[in-house]
Amino acid sequence: MPESDAERDAALARLGAIRSSIDNMDSALVYILAERFRFTTQVGELKAKHGLPPADPDREKRQIARLRSLAEDAHLDPEFAETLLNFIIAEVIRHHERIAEREAQE
Amino acid sequence: MPESDAERDAALARLGAIRSSIDNMDSALVYILAERFRFTTQVGELKAKHGLPPADPDREKRQIARLRSLAEDAHLDPEFAETLLNFIIAEVIRHHERIAEREAQE
Repeated sequence: MPESDAERDAALARLGAIRSSIDNMDSALVYILAERFRFTTQVGELKAKHGLPPADPDREKRQIARLRSLAEDAHLDPEFAETLLNFIIAEVIRHHERIAEREAQE
Repeated sequence: MPESDAERDAALARLGAIRSSIDNMDSALVYILAERFRFTTQVGELKAKHGLPPADPDREKRQIARLRSLAEDAHLDPEFAETLLNFIIAEVIRHHERIAEREAQE
């Protein structure tokens, strides 16, 4: 049975309401990521100043194990959480390398 | 001048403190992402029930423009924010396709 205009309108109104919530989640993600990069910039500066290597495979392994466990707890696909964290860490390492290059030039 | 053990210990203690904050940010990211997927699952179910297409290029364009603007405001690289959102949206579309296939089989 094809749906009535009223049913379709109700579905579209519901869709709009859910999308407003998704937009709020996205704002939260952006601001938390920005704050995370402020912290990783501090890490990069510390590492450059004290001659520590930009990447830290042991720390990354522990982070990924921890994130997978949190993701399971939150019913989020652990594979997805791991891929996303790896993507963020790759960006962080690029930042650290730039900081180390800048320090080396000073 | 090589740094003293005390200087190095202080740097490592500071590194540990910043990493605890990063771990807290990561926990927040996982739980917000989990909540975001709960909302997008509702969107997928609505779309499947009302025969709406899984992907919505106009909505995605508006989301990306909005995110880039938020990222600039938060001093986060807009390119990075866009790539990350595209990655999340690709995962959401895969979820929606699975929901649509399940609805079609019922």
